[in-house]
Amino acid sequence: MTSNQLSEQRPDCPADPPPPPVTVLGLGPMGQALADAFLRHGHPTTVWNRTASRADALVDRGATRAATPLSAVDASPLVVVCMLDYDVVRRVVCPVAPYLIGRTVVNLTADAPERAREMAAWAAARGIDYLDGAIMSPTTAIGGPDALVLYSGTERVHTAHRRTLQALGGTGVYLGQDPGRAAAHDIALLDLFWTAMSGVVHAFALADAEGIPATSLAPFAQAGMRQLPDIVAGYAERIVQGRHPGDRSSLRSASAGMEHVVRAARTRGLNADVLDAAWRLVRREVNAGHGDQGFSRLAKVLAARTG
Amino acid sequence: MTSNQLSEQRPDCPADPPPPPVTVLGLGPMGQALADAFLRHGHPTTVWNRTASRADALVDRGATRAATPLSAVDASPLVVVCMLDYDVVRRVVCPVAPYLIGRTVVNLTADAPERAREMAAWAAARGIDYLDGAIMSPTTAIGGPDALVLYSGTERVHTAHRRTLQALGGTGVYLGQDPGRAAAHDIALLDLFWTAMSGVVHAFALADAEGIPATSLAPFAQAGMRQLPDIVAGYAERIVQGRHPGDRSSLRSASAGMEHVVRAARTRGLNADVLDAAWRLVRREVNAGHGDQGFSRLAKVLAARTG
Repeated sequence: MTSNQLSEQRPDCPADPPPPPVTVLGLGPMGQALADAFLRHGHPTTVWNRTASRADALVDRGATRAATPLSAVDASPLVVVCMLDYDVVRRVVCPVAPYLIGRTVVNLTADAPERAREMAAWAAARGIDYLDGAIMSPTTAIGGPDALVLYSGTERVHTAHRRTLQALGGTGVYLGQDPGRAAAHDIALLDLFWTAMSGVVHAFALADAEGIPATSLAPFAQAGMRQLPDIVAGYAERIVQGRHPGDRSSLRSASAGMEHVVRAARTRGLNADVLDAAWRLVRREVNAGHGDQGFSRLAKVLAARTG
Repeated sequence: MTSNQLSEQRPDCPADPPPPPVTVLGLGPMGQALADAFLRHGHPTTVWNRTASRADALVDRGATRAATPLSAVDASPLVVVCMLDYDVVRRVVCPVAPYLIGRTVVNLTADAPERAREMAAWAAARGIDYLDGAIMSPTTAIGGPDALVLYSGTERVHTAHRRTLQALGGTGVYLGQDPGRAAAHDIALLDLFWTAMSGVVHAFALADAEGIPATSLAPFAQAGMRQLPDIVAGYAERIVQGRHPGDRSSLRSASAGMEHVVRAARTRGLNADVLDAAWRLVRREVNAGHGDQGFSRLAKVLAARTG
């Protein structure tokens, strides 16, 4: 069915408006992926980056290169920002604040929840519509079905731009009015991610010291990691219930396992500071008489701010 | 088809021998799971644990409780050992060494590769067949299709008992003659596991400090963890090739992310020692001019024993 036929059948139904223009500020790997997704969905896309050459490939695919943040902002009602951190965002965005009045800034830069709240307050005081967001997917997933982007802040702003933001793909989740909520999820998940990845590289280093190539260890590491989502769900239940049975895995056995690893690493001349720090937390609980409790207890201990 | 019919058709083919007896020393959660799996496969199973009551449930299901390690060892040609560490194993096993001559010890206790090699040498010097192993699955998987147990040591010993050990379920992988090889895999995977789990509990604590219940964060944490196996495979390729491109994720951006998390945690009064130790390693590489390289480079740096 063509759009002409649609118009004949439903003459009162206006044609879909064309995809509105979007500006993307910041063209690191993630900013480039965002701009590319908007381009692929037909949005006239204006891009700006301090190092202008970062826009070259996007310009080849139809993007408009802006010479300054001001001309970039002036090109679109929706300005998507993705930079290293909020200090960089402020240096670029604050000088053009007068030109953002009546426009919307969607800030997908990763930083702390309090920075997101400050930025939202700053924008509100200047008549700038502001939505904070956090990208939970690698650049390669952006625009595809697996992308996950979290948003929080003024609901009206999210509703107004939800359709455009769908170009980023997959699932966009609105987490509520607190502009720091997306960043709070992001920071907790970054915590998990970077701690886990530190374990990955250390495990490969330890295997290497035993003459096991990374590609030989990898299939076993992958099998182990596929068990983690279920374990995480179990921990979450226990943490919410405030009960930490150690029937399957106790802090005492965790401590024994960690001790083996830390000693094996140090015996081989490897830095073991990361796991040693974790082992110290576990040992403290065991020494305090909680060795029969489960490992999930640590979340409670850390959350109680006794750390 | 009944076994009678089979005998009529193939009169020269002897009937399958009955499952041979097995002894399990050590009845922590994992030892109990092992004994249970042997019982379910019809093996006459003798069990011993220092705290005798740990055998109660197994005795109800048909296991024989041995009063001493000596009578336990005496009951079976195959003795499976699963204890807290090799110090405990030695305290139990060494005094009964004369009674182990001509029998096989399969030691599934987790410890360092060098301890496994020492134990194998100790057994060899006494005429005891010895196989070292590492259990890569949670207790609940033992006996089921998802169980994964790694073995290393004398191939003849593994071949002789492979069929009995299949009662433990899933996949049994023989890694070669070096008796420390299974433990070396185990220690690297424990490293990864406990570091990742430390990240999990810390992420829940950080979310809690922002008023996000663990069960609200969990689905996002699970989605993130499902991406890890692919990332791990990519890291392994880079480590083996010795090339660490930072095109998708650089050490510099990792450092920025880790800084956000460490600061957010400390601002909320949470201990951040674990990720801070990882961040220090990353910062050192960035400061040394490697900020554009990928995070997988850390494995090389650690393996180079400069840590």
